[in-house]
Amino acid sequence: MPEKVKAVVMTAPGEIEVQELPYPKLERGALILQMQMSGICGTDKHAYKGEKVLYGGTEAEQEIVYPTVHGHENVGTVVEICPEDKYLIEYHGQELNVGDRVTMCPNIICGHCWYCRHIFAYPFCAKNTTIGLSFPSNKPPYVVGGWAEYMFVPPRSWVYKVPEEMPDELASLTEIFVVSATLDRAKEFSRLEARGFGFADTVVVQGAGAMGCMHVAKAKMLGAGQIIVIDESDQKMNLAKEFGADVAINVKDVSHQERVKIIKDLTEGRGADVVVETAGTARAFVEGLDYTRRGGTYIETGSFVDTGEVAVNVHRHIAAKNVLLIGNSNHPHTGYYQAMHMMMKYRKEYPFEKLITHKFHLDDGKEAMERSFDPECLKVVFVP
Amino acid sequence: MPEKVKAVVMTAPGEIEVQELPYPKLERGALILQMQMSGICGTDKHAYKGEKVLYGGTEAEQEIVYPTVHGHENVGTVVEICPEDKYLIEYHGQELNVGDRVTMCPNIICGHCWYCRHIFAYPFCAKNTTIGLSFPSNKPPYVVGGWAEYMFVPPRSWVYKVPEEMPDELASLTEIFVVSATLDRAKEFSRLEARGFGFADTVVVQGAGAMGCMHVAKAKMLGAGQIIVIDESDQKMNLAKEFGADVAINVKDVSHQERVKIIKDLTEGRGADVVVETAGTARAFVEGLDYTRRGGTYIETGSFVDTGEVAVNVHRHIAAKNVLLIGNSNHPHTGYYQAMHMMMKYRKEYPFEKLITHKFHLDDGKEAMERSFDPECLKVVFVP
Amino acid sequence: MPEKVKAVVMTAPGEIEVQELPYPKLERGALILQMQMSGICGTDKHAYKGEKVLYGGTEAEQEIVYPTVHGHENVGTVVEICPEDKYLIEYHGQELNVGDRVTMCPNIICGHCWYCRHIFAYPFCAKNTTIGLSFPSNKPPYVVGGWAEYMFVPPRSWVYKVPEEMPDELASLTEIFVVSATLDRAKEFSRLEARGFGFADTVVVQGAGAMGCMHVAKAKMLGAGQIIVIDESDQKMNLAKEFGADVAINVKDVSHQERVKIIKDLTEGRGADVVVETAGTARAFVEGLDYTRRGGTYIETGSFVDTGEVAVNVHRHIAAKNVLLIGNSNHPHTGYYQAMHMMMKYRKEYPFEKLITHKFHLDDGKEAMERSFDPECLKVVFVP
Amino acid sequence: MPEKVKAVVMTAPGEIEVQELPYPKLERGALILQMQMSGICGTDKHAYKGEKVLYGGTEAEQEIVYPTVHGHENVGTVVEICPEDKYLIEYHGQELNVGDRVTMCPNIICGHCWYCRHIFAYPFCAKNTTIGLSFPSNKPPYVVGGWAEYMFVPPRSWVYKVPEEMPDELASLTEIFVVSATLDRAKEFSRLEARGFGFADTVVVQGAGAMGCMHVAKAKMLGAGQIIVIDESDQKMNLAKEFGADVAINVKDVSHQERVKIIKDLTEGRGADVVVETAGTARAFVEGLDYTRRGGTYIETGSFVDTGEVAVNVHRHIAAKNVLLIGNSNHPHTGYYQAMHMMMKYRKEYPFEKLITHKFHLDDGKEAMERSFDPECLKVVFVP
Repeated sequence: MPEKVKAVVMTAPGEIEVQELPYPKLERGALILQMQMSGICGTDKHAYKGEKVLYGGTEAEQEIVYPTVHGHENVGTVVEICPEDKYLIEYHGQELNVGDRVTMCPNIICGHCWYCRHIFAYPFCAKNTTIGLSFPSNKPPYVVGGWAEYMFVPPRSWVYKVPEEMPDELASLTEIFVVSATLDRAKEFSRLEARGFGFADTVVVQGAGAMGCMHVAKAKMLGAGQIIVIDESDQKMNLAKEFGADVAINVKDVSHQERVKIIKDLTEGRGADVVVETAGTARAFVEGLDYTRRGGTYIETGSFVDTGEVAVNVHRHIAAKNVLLIGNSNHPHTGYYQAMHMMMKYRKEYPFEKLITHKFHLDDGKEAMERSFDPECLKVVFVP
Repeated sequence: MPEKVKAVVMTAPGEIEVQELPYPKLERGALILQMQMSGICGTDKHAYKGEKVLYGGTEAEQEIVYPTVHGHENVGTVVEICPEDKYLIEYHGQELNVGDRVTMCPNIICGHCWYCRHIFAYPFCAKNTTIGLSFPSNKPPYVVGGWAEYMFVPPRSWVYKVPEEMPDELASLTEIFVVSATLDRAKEFSRLEARGFGFADTVVVQGAGAMGCMHVAKAKMLGAGQIIVIDESDQKMNLAKEFGADVAINVKDVSHQERVKIIKDLTEGRGADVVVETAGTARAFVEGLDYTRRGGTYIETGSFVDTGEVAVNVHRHIAAKNVLLIGNSNHPHTGYYQAMHMMMKYRKEYPFEKLITHKFHLDDGKEAMERSFDPECLKVVFVP
Repeated sequence: MPEKVKAVVMTAPGEIEVQELPYPKLERGALILQMQMSGICGTDKHAYKGEKVLYGGTEAEQEIVYPTVHGHENVGTVVEICPEDKYLIEYHGQELNVGDRVTMCPNIICGHCWYCRHIFAYPFCAKNTTIGLSFPSNKPPYVVGGWAEYMFVPPRSWVYKVPEEMPDELASLTEIFVVSATLDRAKEFSRLEARGFGFADTVVVQGAGAMGCMHVAKAKMLGAGQIIVIDESDQKMNLAKEFGADVAINVKDVSHQERVKIIKDLTEGRGADVVVETAGTARAFVEGLDYTRRGGTYIETGSFVDTGEVAVNVHRHIAAKNVLLIGNSNHPHTGYYQAMHMMMKYRKEYPFEKLITHKFHLDDGKEAMERSFDPECLKVVFVP
Repeated sequence: MPEKVKAVVMTAPGEIEVQELPYPKLERGALILQMQMSGICGTDKHAYKGEKVLYGGTEAEQEIVYPTVHGHENVGTVVEICPEDKYLIEYHGQELNVGDRVTMCPNIICGHCWYCRHIFAYPFCAKNTTIGLSFPSNKPPYVVGGWAEYMFVPPRSWVYKVPEEMPDELASLTEIFVVSATLDRAKEFSRLEARGFGFADTVVVQGAGAMGCMHVAKAKMLGAGQIIVIDESDQKMNLAKEFGADVAINVKDVSHQERVKIIKDLTEGRGADVVVETAGTARAFVEGLDYTRRGGTYIETGSFVDTGEVAVNVHRHIAAKNVLLIGNSNHPHTGYYQAMHMMMKYRKEYPFEKLITHKFHLDDGKEAMERSFDPECLKVVFVP
């Protein structure tokens, strides 16, 4: 193994450096991976802009640390594992060996607290730490994030084996696909009477970024009847159409009120059955509630970090709307194999790989980050 | 039958008159009742204050009319019914005759529109009209509200037979008890993993008025573990304790932050599993979200009319909270017999009749309305 | 209009005659249709064999009458309608006129009984009558079934307008596609913890007839991961594969125990997450439970008529299996537009029209019925 | 600590001996308890009769071993714990010390297999072992069951702290109360349209033993409207009435058909909304399905061991009944604190302690077992 590991380090908001960090030392329950690919996520971009509070106001509140090696959408190959941990680290006890390629859930949970023992599928742990966000790079084990040649996967992490025939590109998208599990919850809340996310329902997705496109794909896979996507980039929305969107509305072309009218016209005057917010602005929240029909379902999954306040009319947006609203800032650890299986099964029907619009070498860390803010850019990944 | 019907008429916001209206003429599908009792509801009080838009921003939007005979929490005795309608008007086809005492769902739905044919239990009809709110008293059939000696129940209404041994007081409370059906929905959303309204959950009820007390009772009936009530009246909260509240917090005694702290201290630091807003102010909405634990359930059922805007932090209140939020402005027509059955079965355990703190004769219509704003007043009813 | 209507009449079990019946007389609430197409359903075949009790042991128990005009999978064109009923008969109040093509829910419910007012989506009515099964052809209105040139649609029926561009073949399949709504219910019961019908689940469909193929299609539309079909006809199973089945098991090739083993091998040793019984034999029920994993979901939807008894081990098949079992003998009236919309949207992906393997003229009524028992035959339809 | 531990050992079906076993040796992750109380459960009685296969036909299939120390409804006080395990063994990470009184979930799960990582609340583990059933008493650690002076709680067990003011009697009933969590699942499946276990529903409980009485209590706590109990012992049913049963039907007094008629008469002719089978005979299963209304819910939780086969009519009992059937052989580890909290909160309203009809010293092990088969006997416990 090398003595040094090249890594992209965010040293402060707005500051990116390429550094040589010490190669980490294996310990019981941990893994060391040689990295294949690691994405830049919206959370990383928020951190770069200094909007850093995660889970604000909850007992799991967490500040993103500086300096740290970011990167939690990871694909790497096991290079070190303790023999005793062979059946411990893969999510449901499958054998794990040097040479296996894996992806991971970035949330590391304590496994013992009230949340860990009562809310299972989601990592709601009060002591949650997150790969690529919570570990300082100036202390061992240094590289707990994927923007590096090698990374250390801490004890109590869960990894998932990537099928041999699956390309790194697809595997690196697993985590963001898993976020769409809120649509599965909306299915739980469906009723033969028209509640939740029912068969043939009209689904609006606000935002046509990687997250938005993934929700379009998931909505289609779960039996949506008509899918409408809203964004300010025609290029992104054209890709969303390849994922299954039937209608695209560019916010630059029409006003808020016109957008509401278009959606009502497409739904016999009612509004959408299900609306998913992936745009990540506070304003999109109230606009999306205006798109939603009476008794409809609204999923707020774009505000992973604090994006400020917005004025809500409690009568009009919530009570009189009789809305079912699902807030989400997470992804269930149960969803990873499902996501990989379905991406592989339907890779011809859905152009998942096109979501990766840019690849960078670690040496170009700052440029990669800057480019990720480009309006036409979807997913940027590092290839070491 | 008499030629004239004494009735309490709201002629304009803030204006109440006792008038003699023409006795209505029976028609096919309708009923005429001699009134036993009719309550003053929060919606009536909002109308008196001029806050009159119902279902704002939805396709069922509706303005309360003036002049009108209010009164939709009604108990009366059938005095006229067409023989052909014997099996038509009672909710599930039971025989209905002169002399039968009934209560009613105030919502009259078309039965044919998309909402009527797809969202069943709730009256979401796009053409909804409401007894006691939508019918002008200066046009036939004049008295479509319960604050009168006689009332006309329009075609396509549904009535429910009141059990013989049930006092009018209890029967008049049926409709507001049915509003708590959102707690039944929260049970639908419960999971053995701690979601929705689970067994032994901590429930907070914001507001200790008649609606609040009914939600306390319902929460207890459905297996709540700990019930916390929040109001500014100790008298109301003492009554809420008789309904099952374990803890009362007076908002005059402690600040918002202290209230949040008290609730967290009562729940091992997490916050309440379920919070129900019955206070009817926009500010209560965000405060209630602060009471709710991560992954908890919030029911917004107090904003039946437009009470203005409030600033919401989408990240903190919704996404990071991972909240399941249920908006409600209604009551299911399936709930009336259940409500009556359970009020009768448990009338010794829950002091339902104490919710009626004041009774007025129709001649004292204006005084009744003014008194209903008294902070220590719960439910005011008219007895003709 | 003609004076006589040619119709295929089942005069007794095993007896089919082509008769000239009187043209029916329109009445308020009814429709008269000129028929385009009408299918032969499994229930018709059971009636032909004399297995005629429907809803056995329930308060809706019903015997199929003789003589009667069968046919409840109907597509026809309105030729007579009372002007006053223009907005009454289409399911959610849309305008209906002479010349409109429609399909229908065969169940006619009273709309007033406890079931009609409490279990909405499904026609559980205690006084249910069924088009094509309950109306004698020797009394007016004679032709209440689709195997005829014209048919009478009785008052309180619900019809659905067929989109102009939709071929009769597709429209005639609507009702059987709607039966798969139990898979939507299984989605309601899904959990992020692995319950109900979750994303990427393995689904087994027992039987590859028209009903089986429709369930394969629906399972795929709702996000199944792996679909296994079991039948004794390779030809039918090849078609099931075109609908989305990944694996086909011929019961002639392998024993019960080997079938269980194959399914366990395909599911890491656990058994299928969801199993749907459409084969219509009592034996298939216990075999299907053996396919189901611990905590899995079993849908019994093949036994529309009495097919006899089978020995069940309550511990092994039910309790120790911790199964969630959904019995079904019906289709929700809310599902018809969804079904038509999705068949049209995905008509290139799913070969719905191939389900119709045989078309017959009414003159060949007996031959049509006999042919429908052919093992390689899927759906037989009459084209008048 | 003593050198020897007195214990009641089942050496073979029908054979009970009181033995002196070696005192067990503490190890990491384990506890040693001094026993306060341990119940005799139906499973123990089945083992005594030689009906020993658990989870038959599933991959978790398990035979009860001989000789073993039975006893899995346990209350004991910690006498030994490794200091490093202080925060490990209590269910959600609370501190555990010598002197703490605990109860336990008897199922020990691997925590790593597919079931452990996908079906959370229930211990569906493929490698499940069970305290009081799976551990031979002739090998270390000898006493892994509660019918002893001291017992060894194996690593990976979960224990729950008993509140100081809670008597041993109540605490020993925790596990059987938790079995009623299927009623919470039935609440999950409730709908405002009448499905699952809704508010004010009629619930039938088959069997008035300890399990039956606990289900009566739970049904009442969750808002049942009318509770009917069926057994052959008037004494047991009188106790069930103290728990909330409104009606008792003695199977000795009336025939199967008369029982069905009584239940239909109590439900306007429909049958019960929810039926729970706790009688533990295969015949009760089909009888209970006859009690269930169309579209009702049936919970099979009495067949914890193999009780043989019964003839089921798939059309009449399952499909035409449109039943939702929940099989159960388990109790969720999330339910223990809820159960203890609610038993304490409502100990005046429900006579939980009366369920313990007999207490025995360990010296009288065989007599205790024999007595437990007495028809009037409910729960027998050992007090060392």
